Amino acid sequence: MTSPYDPANIFAKILRGEIPAHKVHEDAASLVMMDLFPQSRGHLLVIPKAPARNLLDADPAILATIMPLLQRVAKALLAATGADGLRLAQFNEAPAGQTVFHLHFHLIPVYGDAPLAPHAAGKADDTELAALAKAIADQL
Amino acid sequence: MTSPYDPANIFAKILRGEIPAHKVHEDAASLVMMDLFPQSRGHLLVIPKAPARNLLDADPAILATIMPLLQRVAKALLAATGADGLRLAQFNEAPAGQTVFHLHFHLIPVYGDAPLAPHAAGKADDTELAALAKAIADQL
Repeated sequence: MTSPYDPANIFAKILRGEIPAHKVHEDAASLVMMDLFPQSRGHLLVIPKAPARNLLDADPAILATIMPLLQRVAKALLAATGADGLRLAQFNEAPAGQTVFHLHFHLIPVYGDAPLAPHAAGKADDTELAALAKAIADQL
Repeated sequence: MTSPYDPANIFAKILRGEIPAHKVHEDAASLVMMDLFPQSRGHLLVIPKAPARNLLDADPAILATIMPLLQRVAKALLAATGADGLRLAQFNEAPAGQTVFHLHFHLIPVYGDAPLAPHAAGKADDTELAALAKAIADQL
């Protein structure tokens, strides 16, 4: 089912520094950044740097490092936003909702019973995203 | 935000063998079983056995083992069902949709543009779940 990795995807361009992002954390193996079309305030993307289309073709050794990072980032996200809950989501292939074909994990804060926005409903304000990125990074 | 682990939750009862489940895979550290209220045909739950309420209080060493298992199970699930895509989801705390307070990961197959059923909308047929569990296990 899975097609080959296409290095022209937007996350690959961000990882190569060709386009900017609101970065929260970066290390040799991974990047954490704000989703530009957030489903709620503080919606983050956690991205292993190694080329992989999605969960299905990723290197298991890379995958082993990601869940502890997701935990660490999730705690910082909750501390920074005061959210009441948090969803982890990851989509594989277009029918499942994948729109960028570089493996990425969504961390989506939930506030009380406020519904989440639809995915990619609207672009967030850059000033607000920059402030959130700093607030979350300060908790890491 | 996180409350202590409550060993009376239904997944803990399944792990202790007090109530049955449609098991797909079990090893010393984890259990994979059919969701009884599937959002689509083949909806699976992947559960680390170690007591943890959710992602926030889990042992990072346990978490490191889970993502490679999720990958392995995801591939078997797609092979067994012929689904066109797959969602990974994990909910932390009730506002985010968590209903059973033992850490668990959802693997939800997607078929074409068919919408997913709401969570816990209806109980699946036991005979069908048993057949699916066997078909997925055969691909592992």
